Amino acid sequence: MAQVDTERFLKDLNELRRIGQFKTGVHRPTFSPEDMESRHWLVARLEECGLEASIDGIGNVFGRHKGPGPHLLVGSHIETQNQAGWLDGALGVMSGVALARAGLPVDVIAFADEEGHYGSFIGSRSATGLLEEGEIDRLSNRYHGKPLRDALREAGLEGRERLRLDPSRYKGFFELHIEQGTQLESRGLRAGVVTGIVAIWQFRILITGMQDHAGGTTMAERKDAGLAAVRLLARIDQEFPMVCGERSTWTCGRIALEPGAPSIIPGSAEVLFQFRDIDMETLERMERTLRAIVGESNRRERCTAELQVMSRSIPSPCHEAMMATLDRAAEAEAPGGWMRMPSGAGHDAQYMARIMPAAMLFAPSIGGISHHWAEDTKEEDLALNVRILARAAEDFLRSNVSPG
Amino acid sequence: MAQVDTERFLKDLNELRRIGQFKTGVHRPTFSPEDMESRHWLVARLEECGLEASIDGIGNVFGRHKGPGPHLLVGSHIETQNQAGWLDGALGVMSGVALARAGLPVDVIAFADEEGHYGSFIGSRSATGLLEEGEIDRLSNRYHGKPLRDALREAGLEGRERLRLDPSRYKGFFELHIEQGTQLESRGLRAGVVTGIVAIWQFRILITGMQDHAGGTTMAERKDAGLAAVRLLARIDQEFPMVCGERSTWTCGRIALEPGAPSIIPGSAEVLFQFRDIDMETLERMERTLRAIVGESNRRERCTAELQVMSRSIPSPCHEAMMATLDRAAEAEAPGGWMRMPSGAGHDAQYMARIMPAAMLFAPSIGGISHHWAEDTKEEDLALNVRILARAAEDFLRSNVSPG
Repeated sequence: MAQVDTERFLKDLNELRRIGQFKTGVHRPTFSPEDMESRHWLVARLEECGLEASIDGIGNVFGRHKGPGPHLLVGSHIETQNQAGWLDGALGVMSGVALARAGLPVDVIAFADEEGHYGSFIGSRSATGLLEEGEIDRLSNRYHGKPLRDALREAGLEGRERLRLDPSRYKGFFELHIEQGTQLESRGLRAGVVTGIVAIWQFRILITGMQDHAGGTTMAERKDAGLAAVRLLARIDQEFPMVCGERSTWTCGRIALEPGAPSIIPGSAEVLFQFRDIDMETLERMERTLRAIVGESNRRERCTAELQVMSRSIPSPCHEAMMATLDRAAEAEAPGGWMRMPSGAGHDAQYMARIMPAAMLFAPSIGGISHHWAEDTKEEDLALNVRILARAAEDFLRSNVSPG
Repeated sequence: MAQVDTERFLKDLNELRRIGQFKTGVHRPTFSPEDMESRHWLVARLEECGLEASIDGIGNVFGRHKGPGPHLLVGSHIETQNQAGWLDGALGVMSGVALARAGLPVDVIAFADEEGHYGSFIGSRSATGLLEEGEIDRLSNRYHGKPLRDALREAGLEGRERLRLDPSRYKGFFELHIEQGTQLESRGLRAGVVTGIVAIWQFRILITGMQDHAGGTTMAERKDAGLAAVRLLARIDQEFPMVCGERSTWTCGRIALEPGAPSIIPGSAEVLFQFRDIDMETLERMERTLRAIVGESNRRERCTAELQVMSRSIPSPCHEAMMATLDRAAEAEAPGGWMRMPSGAGHDAQYMARIMPAAMLFAPSIGGISHHWAEDTKEEDLALNVRILARAAEDFLRSNVSPG
């Protein structure tokens, strides 16, 4: 069995941590000087492992194993959110390097801008043929507005070809990532075998009433759009538990009343609402419930509610056989110290899953903190999970599942 | 009985309407050139009636009856909200002029900035000794920020003394105003005898939860401040009807979730909530109910709610004997076509009520529209109400109620 040099792995992670260091975390926004420095640093690490390393036209860093297959693809992303953590993305990339160093036949990849400074998942979308030139032309930085084309040029990537992954080369894609939640920690577990990446269905509810004077308008005649919004959300709070899945989440992230002044009855209200689950039937049931609630609101209220679909992504289940190898590896390395769990957040793996078998492994997050410089995981859990990953990777390579 | 020249009254109103005309309404913000023009125009009308007219250091226009008492004070305000109506305030001022012209022993007043371009009710507050020089120093225009001192200087009012009303001079204060609601119109009535000006009690509820990832945080562990706000407001919606008065109003004008992004569980929420009633016991009962609801929220929820008192004004009941004269006058002029009703909005009368008997009379608002250029009332209802006012004023002057 391949031996992972966990000490070297942790040393690499901590070296990477110093590029764009911010308190105990990292500030490495996509295509910033620190981000490009980290990509070039990674190229050097990949070459040290004997991989053929390159950075493509969208910033994906790719290390190609020179020997024969079957191959696996292993990786994640290397940029960070602003003033964020040292492990989110970096963990998965350096685990790939660790597996390559241990002699496993893996290609290693750091997908560009999973964090969406310019556009979420543009790296993994590009590598799976889902990013058109026209979209690159239109994208710009969400914080400072710089066009993506300018950033690519300044990073020295203009004119380079963009990588297209060949699914037939790989048996599968593995991604090790921090959990970014507290499910593992709260149960005292040390590894999570991910069942899949949930779909996110997002809606906007626009409620129209009649703006009016808070004092001069009686309760009986007013058309308070804010109150209609509250009643609608309260009904969702009652009904969704009756129809949801075991691990569904639903969230209202934003309520905006117009005009939003203390003495004025709101004439309109906007609600942003979303729900997530890994099972299509559950998602459809939750949407039917939402539509029923909006319909009932329109029957009862003096205000009108309009439901708009903003987006509906598809669930990305992880591959059964790959999950089984992770189960066995986790049980071997940490008996009884792991569980199956869905990923509530999106990852590059959801795009890999469209073209090849894919699986994810979660390491615990201390306090569930992520997208914050205080993000952390115990070093022994980082080491444990890269060992689980290596064991599962070897197991899967030996298995009868065919590439592509 | 004094005969009011209603034709002249309507002519005056329509002449005033042309100063700062905006569509069918008026744009005459406090101390704008059009507003000062209207104040000088009013001085001329007051002098025509034989009153001693002046503009004081805060912009109050005052016409003093030269003959013996007992006297009444009659008036309202003359500036408008931005791009607003022709009657809001102007009606009460020109009704005073009409009564003076009919020979009644009335002083007439147009209080400055009831509409609060610089500070709500600064004119009536100044005239009742509630406006300090220090506050004038601090005030500025809410739209463009010009300091009040600058505006007073540009209006030529710098250095002028400010009027202090002598309560002992008056038996009472009458204010005719448009209803700015639909209570009269919806009942087919033509006049409203105001029982008093409601108190407004304003609160801010701050709810603290834990900001977190909408997908990665389970429903069981999340501390969603927005959801706690919704449940709290839904509880208010259920409980307030059980404890309110017949004409109470309660309004949530603003809900703000932080950070307000679709995929982030709100870590905090701010709610601005107010209720209004004319009866202190009812107000206290509503506040006790609100506190009970907040207390129960803190017992049940994983978020904490903090109730902050922003302001509590006092109800301003109208004077019994003055209301009785208005009742009789309304019944004489429009049998069965009037009713008693509270004022849900604030008026200069609430400050007059602190120093002398005060009463208000409402004319119907077409469609309840106000603070909008489409604001309007049928001319026959304007004429009717000034006749009611004159009749009631004479009746009250003859009565045994002493001045001051």
